[in-house]
Amino acid sequence: MNTYRILIKCKDAKGLVYGVSKVFFDFDLNIISNSEFVDNQAEIFFMRSVVAGAVDQKQLHDKLAKALPIHADIQVIDTQTKRNIVIMATKESHALGDLLLRYADGELNANVLGVVANHEHLRHFVEKFDLPFFSLSADGMTRETHEIAALELLKNEFPQLDYIVLAKYMRILSPFFVGHFPYKMINIHHSFLPAFIGANPYKQAYERGVKVIGATAHFVTNDLDEGPIIAQSTLAVDHAHSWKQMQAMGRDVEKIVLSNALKQILEDRIFLHGNRTIIL
Amino acid sequence: MNTYRILIKCKDAKGLVYGVSKVFFDFDLNIISNSEFVDNQAEIFFMRSVVAGAVDQKQLHDKLAKALPIHADIQVIDTQTKRNIVIMATKESHALGDLLLRYADGELNANVLGVVANHEHLRHFVEKFDLPFFSLSADGMTRETHEIAALELLKNEFPQLDYIVLAKYMRILSPFFVGHFPYKMINIHHSFLPAFIGANPYKQAYERGVKVIGATAHFVTNDLDEGPIIAQSTLAVDHAHSWKQMQAMGRDVEKIVLSNALKQILEDRIFLHGNRTIIL
Amino acid sequence: MNTYRILIKCKDAKGLVYGVSKVFFDFDLNIISNSEFVDNQAEIFFMRSVVAGAVDQKQLHDKLAKALPIHADIQVIDTQTKRNIVIMATKESHALGDLLLRYADGELNANVLGVVANHEHLRHFVEKFDLPFFSLSADGMTRETHEIAALELLKNEFPQLDYIVLAKYMRILSPFFVGHFPYKMINIHHSFLPAFIGANPYKQAYERGVKVIGATAHFVTNDLDEGPIIAQSTLAVDHAHSWKQMQAMGRDVEKIVLSNALKQILEDRIFLHGNRTIIL
Amino acid sequence: MNTYRILIKCKDAKGLVYGVSKVFFDFDLNIISNSEFVDNQAEIFFMRSVVAGAVDQKQLHDKLAKALPIHADIQVIDTQTKRNIVIMATKESHALGDLLLRYADGELNANVLGVVANHEHLRHFVEKFDLPFFSLSADGMTRETHEIAALELLKNEFPQLDYIVLAKYMRILSPFFVGHFPYKMINIHHSFLPAFIGANPYKQAYERGVKVIGATAHFVTNDLDEGPIIAQSTLAVDHAHSWKQMQAMGRDVEKIVLSNALKQILEDRIFLHGNRTIIL
Repeated sequence: MNTYRILIKCKDAKGLVYGVSKVFFDFDLNIISNSEFVDNQAEIFFMRSVVAGAVDQKQLHDKLAKALPIHADIQVIDTQTKRNIVIMATKESHALGDLLLRYADGELNANVLGVVANHEHLRHFVEKFDLPFFSLSADGMTRETHEIAALELLKNEFPQLDYIVLAKYMRILSPFFVGHFPYKMINIHHSFLPAFIGANPYKQAYERGVKVIGATAHFVTNDLDEGPIIAQSTLAVDHAHSWKQMQAMGRDVEKIVLSNALKQILEDRIFLHGNRTIIL
Repeated sequence: MNTYRILIKCKDAKGLVYGVSKVFFDFDLNIISNSEFVDNQAEIFFMRSVVAGAVDQKQLHDKLAKALPIHADIQVIDTQTKRNIVIMATKESHALGDLLLRYADGELNANVLGVVANHEHLRHFVEKFDLPFFSLSADGMTRETHEIAALELLKNEFPQLDYIVLAKYMRILSPFFVGHFPYKMINIHHSFLPAFIGANPYKQAYERGVKVIGATAHFVTNDLDEGPIIAQSTLAVDHAHSWKQMQAMGRDVEKIVLSNALKQILEDRIFLHGNRTIIL
Repeated sequence: MNTYRILIKCKDAKGLVYGVSKVFFDFDLNIISNSEFVDNQAEIFFMRSVVAGAVDQKQLHDKLAKALPIHADIQVIDTQTKRNIVIMATKESHALGDLLLRYADGELNANVLGVVANHEHLRHFVEKFDLPFFSLSADGMTRETHEIAALELLKNEFPQLDYIVLAKYMRILSPFFVGHFPYKMINIHHSFLPAFIGANPYKQAYERGVKVIGATAHFVTNDLDEGPIIAQSTLAVDHAHSWKQMQAMGRDVEKIVLSNALKQILEDRIFLHGNRTIIL
Repeated sequence: MNTYRILIKCKDAKGLVYGVSKVFFDFDLNIISNSEFVDNQAEIFFMRSVVAGAVDQKQLHDKLAKALPIHADIQVIDTQTKRNIVIMATKESHALGDLLLRYADGELNANVLGVVANHEHLRHFVEKFDLPFFSLSADGMTRETHEIAALELLKNEFPQLDYIVLAKYMRILSPFFVGHFPYKMINIHHSFLPAFIGANPYKQAYERGVKVIGATAHFVTNDLDEGPIIAQSTLAVDHAHSWKQMQAMGRDVEKIVLSNALKQILEDRIFLHGNRTIIL
């Protein structure tokens, strides 16, 4: 007996739940959980089921395809599948460290392959966790040259990577780089987007005099800080907090939001829908 | 074309979603939203669907009953149904007022029939809203006598009431009274239960030195403050807040939590499951 | 025995607390509470004290002026002073209603003089609370003409107003109008500013796919939605919430944030500091 | 130029701020921040100042003692003082790991001397951080014998310890053990106390059907889970979360609350006041 996650995204129509649940029934699958969402305006149907049983995944996929509208996007994923993750970082260790702690603790259903940074700074820290660490300084390089080197490194060292997690990687990535990992790269931005796009959001927040700060985990797309949002959380601040203090307080939110966003990815809960996420 | 809420609670089994969605399909119903939950330990299946179409409710109910395990609890509710609500209060106006504002604003899909209090204090306030107000002082009465009088009043004045909302009704109700309204009475308790059961929870909170306070909306059962919880929310406090200040701050949470709990009832989102609520 | 709030804003220097507390001591005043804040970069000192005793306010002010740097901004306010408030609204009743409920309940240390709206819609609602209601339709008027009429109305009907509270007043006010009430007008904006400036922030929020929404109470300045922020709060949402639902959920945050911002004004807790607020 | 924290707790009286600020002025100290609190009922005055200057700490203390009521509790602490911390744990690594990450990152103004556990489980993890690890199994021991051994170990290995942090140490400590570290030991309890005292609070929370869970950092006293609360935080849950899931979600709150409570201790912000904390 295995368990599978079934992900469906297709044009909405009458009878979809009936059609899908009939396939599950015919395959003698037990539904462990089931979530659906319909965007009524766009007329798109989303469904995530977790089912238990013994099936041939290909056959199940084919039967579902027959039960659903043409061009339906269908995935059948064994829950034991572990994604291969590479983490990119710069100098700060909190978000990276939170991920590594959870990984060491067996909390992440993934293989963390290693860490790539644009500074040597975190080497000792990462090596504590028995993970390969690569640093690739951008000193004296154009953005393009540095990104080509980074791509080369990723390709050579981690040919099997599934997702890149930017755990406070403090360099802007160009569309050229991002284009190699479409919706396979997530980032933690240190503000409650869309507020304070760009550099030093805590300083911006201080100067604007806001009473809440926050963090946003999102997919990285060509447009800086504009990709689909996965998770956000906020924290109350007041006039007495300098931007440095906001930055320190914000780290607690950043690391939790990023780790939880990654978990949602690893549990296959996230559907892309234009520039939004549907999380089932 | 009408819309209906279908509520199902039954023993879990394979094929339930299939069976139900087949009935919907056969009746040519369009599923607007669908939520399911299975308590795997207790092996109980819960489902709430909102469907649109033209059906005979009785026929739909019967077909569902055939598709589901014996003794399944099935409800088919027209979304236009308005429940009849009576609010009970004492002297404080914030929770009552929040409900009346929403009612005046058309935000509650219900008929508020009137307000019953154990003091005259709120008469002028309630009558602003063109609602009948009855006060029934408990002065010089035993609890039993007062409750009998209250029951009499409710029966005579509001024979059609569906739910009683205790909006800071500050008298303890005996099992005798509660027994007349099984799971038809909700209360707002001014603490995050199970902390600070009983009288003056803000004073208890101050004395214990907690750093959060809260409020809990729950069904009223025989056991004081022990009924199934519908909604809870908390608020940060610190040493500088006296219990009077906590009480004032807490009102903001109390009123929002109670109003939102009532809305969940009016949308038929709540299933009872032992002493817990399943909210779909 | 009276109680007074003493507000001080001046250039920072050594010995300020000493100087001020010596004056309090010399006047035989009992300090009930005391809060200070120094902006070290700007070298500005802020202090709010609540003191009890019997003093001549003018004398106390003069002695404090002698103890403090030249050009110090000093206010001595009797805590029994009630500010005169006019509320401006459009059609929505939740924020207005929350203020009126609190006012009716004696929770606001203020006189609410009346309500001015740009629609007739809320007349019946406001008159329930025995307050004068004026509507001034903008139909067929230029912004300028409408604002001149509004100013005229405010001047004639409420010559003694201290603060204007915009409780979902849905018209943009020009710098001409705002200039008549410098830092005497507060607004509730239905987003966590600086996100979603401008029209229909909930729709913007939905389209951006954020996972939190919020509300911001701020002073109104010439720059739309750019004035000093007083209070903010946020609320979790998800993909299943339409923008209409976000709007409904957001009302709960809007009304609480606005009412609490007004309370802070009425307790003289807010200092202006550039485009930020210091709240002591 | 050094900076000092001045902590004062004494009987309330007129002129205390004046007296203290005069001493600061006479010593030519610059006040960086200043917070006061008066418990008006108990008539106790609390003050925490951070001052900069060049002073003899003993002299400053003596002058303050002269300016304050007899028996005033006065502390003058150089902000560079690092407290010596020992962490006690069992098998879970999240709260411990969060502390060690912050320590490795230089975020804690303290010396972490080492970790003592009642299992071997965490040895490899702790040794990654180049810290001494001691395990002391309780197998086959009475509580008394085990505690005597633990005290012996602490005395021998860490004679200079200032604070013990219980980072999910899952054994109950007797008054005998606690008595050796009066208000020098903090604990993280995995519920929003006073709810769910005792074993497995997440299971209790699940069974009670609460809609929020939380965590509480508190000083350890003789009465289990009854010591003065330092910090608390809560998190929304729903019917779909099993108690195992609540436990996993709760870890995020536990670790943040514990780390932040420790920071408040290290910044000398906490005053004890009966069974409550005053945090300035």
